[in-house]
Amino acid sequence: MNEYLKHDEWCIIEEGFNPENQRSSESIFSLGNGHIGQRANFEEQYSGDTLQGNYIAGIYYPDKTKVGWWKNGYPEYFAKVLNAPNWIGINILVGKQELDLAKVKIKNFRRVLNMKEGYLERSFYAEFSNEQAIEVTAKRFLSITQNELGCIKYQIRCVNIDDTITIEPYIDADVINEDANYNEKFWEEVDIESRPGEAYLTAKTKKLDFYVCTSMKFSIEKNNTEIKNTVKENKRKKYLSQRVSVDCKTDDVITIYKYASITHSENHDKEQLTIAAHNNLESATEKGFNQLFTEHANAWKKKWTTSDIEIEGDVAGQQGIRFNIFQLNQTYTGDDERLNIGPKGFTGEKYGGSTYWDTEAYCLPFYLRTSEQQVAKNLLLYRYRHLPKAIENAGKLGFKDGAALYPMVTMNGEECHNEWEITFEEIHRNGAIAYAIYNYTRYTGDESYIEDYGLEVLIAISRFWAQRVNFSQEKKQYVILGVTGPNEYENNVNNNWYTNTIARWCLDYTLKMITKVQTEAPEKYKKLKEKIHFNELKEAGKWTNIVDNIYIPEDEDLNIFLQQDGFLDKEIIPAENLDPEQRPINQKWSWDRILRSCYIKQADVLQGLFFFEDHYDEDTIKRNFDFYEPLTVHESSLSPCVHTILAAKLGYKEQAYELYLRTARLDLDDYNNEVNQGLHITSMAGTYLSIVEGFGGMRIKNGELHFNPFLPPQWNKYSFIVKFRGKLIKVEVTNEKTIVYNQHNEKIKVIVHGLDYSINAHESLEIR
Amino acid sequence: MNEYLKHDEWCIIEEGFNPENQRSSESIFSLGNGHIGQRANFEEQYSGDTLQGNYIAGIYYPDKTKVGWWKNGYPEYFAKVLNAPNWIGINILVGKQELDLAKVKIKNFRRVLNMKEGYLERSFYAEFSNEQAIEVTAKRFLSITQNELGCIKYQIRCVNIDDTITIEPYIDADVINEDANYNEKFWEEVDIESRPGEAYLTAKTKKLDFYVCTSMKFSIEKNNTEIKNTVKENKRKKYLSQRVSVDCKTDDVITIYKYASITHSENHDKEQLTIAAHNNLESATEKGFNQLFTEHANAWKKKWTTSDIEIEGDVAGQQGIRFNIFQLNQTYTGDDERLNIGPKGFTGEKYGGSTYWDTEAYCLPFYLRTSEQQVAKNLLLYRYRHLPKAIENAGKLGFKDGAALYPMVTMNGEECHNEWEITFEEIHRNGAIAYAIYNYTRYTGDESYIEDYGLEVLIAISRFWAQRVNFSQEKKQYVILGVTGPNEYENNVNNNWYTNTIARWCLDYTLKMITKVQTEAPEKYKKLKEKIHFNELKEAGKWTNIVDNIYIPEDEDLNIFLQQDGFLDKEIIPAENLDPEQRPINQKWSWDRILRSCYIKQADVLQGLFFFEDHYDEDTIKRNFDFYEPLTVHESSLSPCVHTILAAKLGYKEQAYELYLRTARLDLDDYNNEVNQGLHITSMAGTYLSIVEGFGGMRIKNGELHFNPFLPPQWNKYSFIVKFRGKLIKVEVTNEKTIVYNQHNEKIKVIVHGLDYSINAHESLEIR
Repeated sequence: MNEYLKHDEWCIIEEGFNPENQRSSESIFSLGNGHIGQRANFEEQYSGDTLQGNYIAGIYYPDKTKVGWWKNGYPEYFAKVLNAPNWIGINILVGKQELDLAKVKIKNFRRVLNMKEGYLERSFYAEFSNEQAIEVTAKRFLSITQNELGCIKYQIRCVNIDDTITIEPYIDADVINEDANYNEKFWEEVDIESRPGEAYLTAKTKKLDFYVCTSMKFSIEKNNTEIKNTVKENKRKKYLSQRVSVDCKTDDVITIYKYASITHSENHDKEQLTIAAHNNLESATEKGFNQLFTEHANAWKKKWTTSDIEIEGDVAGQQGIRFNIFQLNQTYTGDDERLNIGPKGFTGEKYGGSTYWDTEAYCLPFYLRTSEQQVAKNLLLYRYRHLPKAIENAGKLGFKDGAALYPMVTMNGEECHNEWEITFEEIHRNGAIAYAIYNYTRYTGDESYIEDYGLEVLIAISRFWAQRVNFSQEKKQYVILGVTGPNEYENNVNNNWYTNTIARWCLDYTLKMITKVQTEAPEKYKKLKEKIHFNELKEAGKWTNIVDNIYIPEDEDLNIFLQQDGFLDKEIIPAENLDPEQRPINQKWSWDRILRSCYIKQADVLQGLFFFEDHYDEDTIKRNFDFYEPLTVHESSLSPCVHTILAAKLGYKEQAYELYLRTARLDLDDYNNEVNQGLHITSMAGTYLSIVEGFGGMRIKNGELHFNPFLPPQWNKYSFIVKFRGKLIKVEVTNEKTIVYNQHNEKIKVIVHGLDYSINAHESLEIR
Repeated sequence: MNEYLKHDEWCIIEEGFNPENQRSSESIFSLGNGHIGQRANFEEQYSGDTLQGNYIAGIYYPDKTKVGWWKNGYPEYFAKVLNAPNWIGINILVGKQELDLAKVKIKNFRRVLNMKEGYLERSFYAEFSNEQAIEVTAKRFLSITQNELGCIKYQIRCVNIDDTITIEPYIDADVINEDANYNEKFWEEVDIESRPGEAYLTAKTKKLDFYVCTSMKFSIEKNNTEIKNTVKENKRKKYLSQRVSVDCKTDDVITIYKYASITHSENHDKEQLTIAAHNNLESATEKGFNQLFTEHANAWKKKWTTSDIEIEGDVAGQQGIRFNIFQLNQTYTGDDERLNIGPKGFTGEKYGGSTYWDTEAYCLPFYLRTSEQQVAKNLLLYRYRHLPKAIENAGKLGFKDGAALYPMVTMNGEECHNEWEITFEEIHRNGAIAYAIYNYTRYTGDESYIEDYGLEVLIAISRFWAQRVNFSQEKKQYVILGVTGPNEYENNVNNNWYTNTIARWCLDYTLKMITKVQTEAPEKYKKLKEKIHFNELKEAGKWTNIVDNIYIPEDEDLNIFLQQDGFLDKEIIPAENLDPEQRPINQKWSWDRILRSCYIKQADVLQGLFFFEDHYDEDTIKRNFDFYEPLTVHESSLSPCVHTILAAKLGYKEQAYELYLRTARLDLDDYNNEVNQGLHITSMAGTYLSIVEGFGGMRIKNGELHFNPFLPPQWNKYSFIVKFRGKLIKVEVTNEKTIVYNQHNEKIKVIVHGLDYSINAHESLEIR
């Protein structure tokens, strides 16, 4: 548990330098603009413990799959997000002494992540062994208006100096990944060009040939006047720096502006990278730091108008939720359908920056509510573009005739995870991808997506399910054997309730959508049918049969759904009875013990009840919640949000709030001692949903907007803003009343606590 | 399928050089003496494809465990049998041209493994590009009378030569393992000493500090007269050679005798290795090649008198079974309780030379029948010595109070395998170790083993089972969840019939042995009880309860035992219906597909019925055999033998023979295209049992020897010899009669086809 950060409504603040927490702070203070991300590494040299990380969306390395024993079907590689060439570096020498926070005496260290305007600022006082001293203030941002641009303003005030200060901005492609099979480096130099104050380094990745140009342009002011001192260049393989020496006296102020542009071959012709970077830098220097920053900060302010959640009476809670929203918006901006959201975003190497089912299950609803419709649509199109690879992937596992199995972990649509129990068996992910299509359509009302893209995906997924079930002579029903459900503390089980349920739903939904498209867009339907050789009679016939005859495990005595066959053979002991010393069990118990225990890593049956709550009466949900919640250890950050939302629905207000707290400040307070590896980006969306769907009770049913809000007793007030079908609606909740603000210029209809209301344009509704 | 080897009753013969099969031949023609093993690599330089392999029993390398995703409880390392320093090497230069079978023109290549006398001989004619030619005959053996000694006689006849022939014997510790995580080399030089004609190279392993001295002493004769030409030494790191040049003319014969001694720190003080090697070499050269060979060959002949199986009317079959017996005797001689039998013996790197449950389940019965009692006892003592590590191993998985889980794979008692579904879950191995104690006692009648060692192991294993079961409220019985049975094509299943059955048997047998030792050796019992803090009342009480109330899965409709819970949910389709293109399924199907299929890798329920056949009536065995045999794909070499024995028992003679054929020449004919990796040593014991227990129907019941023989119609006659409680008994079976020879000097009693017979000393009994 971390407690070195200050509570503040809009900022994350570290006061006093905590080198023991440096890796964690580097994660927490990360910047990103949806295309580039940068951990909060220092500009100047730092010889202490650090994880250097600068990541470019879509640029990865297919490192050879490493397993103890090869099993047939394993993917060839595991994708690794690459630590990209360093663009932030500025070495500082005072006399002959290097500024290195691990070596000098530091005072007044302060690091601030300003979430309102999207920048990182750091200041400190440094005293050298010869008693010379400086004060540094460094501010930087990754522009969200110019997504190939990063800007740094690095200011040195001479407190006690009579010496030369040498400033050495550099770019460096000689970087490593900590996660590399054989400690190899992944970048090769292609080209370096430079002139004084300006440099362009093009490097390519060893495999896949991604080309990246990392460039810089800098200027130096002394006491607000630009200086044009001699630049001394230092070039070696994959590295270039330019050194400028300035004679300084006490009270002099040196200001360095470093602009960096990162251009790459996914967005430019690889021959044009340097030119593109040059143009970016020209236009940046023309505008200058302040104007660039203003544009950037304004864009951030605009983002907040559609995504903010305000909490009164709980500064830590306010900071926590804003941190989550901020990081989500830093990670994915939705302007490029080739990109997606890795579990750690741009904040660390873990999980390889790849896409998991987290996107569909948790992130999509966040972007649906807070961004333009196209943003969410691009998440769907990402999977649509990967459909051929998903079909190929299913083919490798023996499925045929256009059946698709989307990968568990992917960069470009190929599977790249290598645990058989996950890769081959955690097939429910296919369901989440279908559910996302339904969820998007339900939220936006945009039926055209199904016609143009969605149905093709749904049919391919349904083909998979139809081949993946088998008919049990024993049960006289269809069964799904050998799966891993969302609860990864069970492996290779039979008839996981969630998987069977979502498979049935997929088939049923696909059948309905077929009928719909057949009727409403017959031409499109005909074309699709031909394209994918769809045989309605045979295929849809079998699907109907499966929908009608699939086995859904239940226990009659307890009147609950059964997580999987045989679940009740386990010793059922509530998790609260576990010795706290034994938790988290994934760190304390061997894997077999976890597997045969009753403990649930993350919502499984409850995940299904959350997705399909309309299919079940409240009593059923309650019985299952009451049975499974006590067995859930929530050792996945994706778990508590689902439980919060269900608890809220069931009126378990205290419990809903307790569950919410488990993720609200997960990274800021570093509950699991792992924030050094990066932030839990995807679970942040779950935390957002905990408030909006949990406490706010927001639902879309039949195209209508429902709220069912309550105020957690620990708060005085909270409010959230959602975008629904182009309308901006703010909901404010206190103990006495709920106010719904219609920020749209047309009348809207909402249903609050089950009652219908109309609200005129720019008016509000108060309900006591 | 291999067909380049000639059929012969006592020899394995390759005629004509088959470089494409070189790795396979290197495995097949391997030599071993229970302490050292050597693949049939060439003495002279060979630049073609080869797997160099020379292994020393007990000398291994703990290579870091390599997995994709670490799971709690994984062992730190995976043991690798080390390719040890080369002792066979003799470079030959004719003029300036090197003798390298990949580069010269070869004729009349012939390689013979003589199994009767235990040696390898190779001869060929080699012509160089300048038309000079030689004939080479190389004979070598690894002495079974002097287990630190290898001898080579390498003869060159000059067919067409007028040139200098340079002979360069060497020893080389600069060797590699193909199976190394990071391509590193595992040996470090400690010391080299030499004088002309003699050299000693001591190297140590990088981890664990095993010291090995590899030494050579050689002499060279020209036309039968020893020559004393100048020796030119070539020394580099970890390598030493001595070069002798001889002027040769056509018809000259050069003979090189190279004696090598390998001494190591497991058997000698590490400071004494060179001296010990020196003494070995002195005594060897004193005796000379011929005498050493005669002693060695006589010892082999003696081994055959207690282990041979003769088959008439099937030369291929005869060769096959002798090959198996020969390799088993090469691999384990039973004179050192620290050693054991790796699945590949000394013939390849795969499986790391480690010990698996194969030893107890398959190999022990072979050595019981063919060797002195102490040999089998040493296999048991091996596990007894490892008991503290087995308790430690169980501790790592959360078991306590002296519960032992023997490792799945081990060198020194520590677990070193790293697939969770095997390491943590294939716990039935504990049962096999208990069963071996029972099996040894039953065979030998040596009750003292139980008192002195066995009971301690049994109690520790029973403690494990008692903690590993849990009580199912659903079934109101004890269950065992999350296991992998002998059929590794199922992972993490509940209530594997074999595991539950052997667990129950273990507990029951332990309880009986407790009572027995209590009564018959009360002092020993008391001492043991104190040593291990055994609480009869509490512990034995619980065990009785489990024995009485453990769930054993059965299907009432089919009236069979159920391999595991839920097995009948699978699609049950006989393996013969599989497209042959799809087999072996472990090469053609992805892992998940295998897991959810009904196909059985190796005997599972049937393994249990084989172990405990006395507990079941023949009808029960038949029903289960009829159900499970058709589903078994026998993709483990350990499978068909069990099915053969059961088929024979059930009177399915044709099927018994067909199943037998699957392993009889598994390696010689290379059914699975993998003999290049080494031989299937442990399954060879299964093949032996197929004849002795299968066709011969040999059983021990209540201390009495039963035979129930039949003759496979493809044979004219077969016979086998077994040692039973010190008595050598030969059984000869033809179509008309069975003859039992009592080769012992006392009367014996046997039961043949259910009838009791007495046979006087050195007489025989003929039954028509």
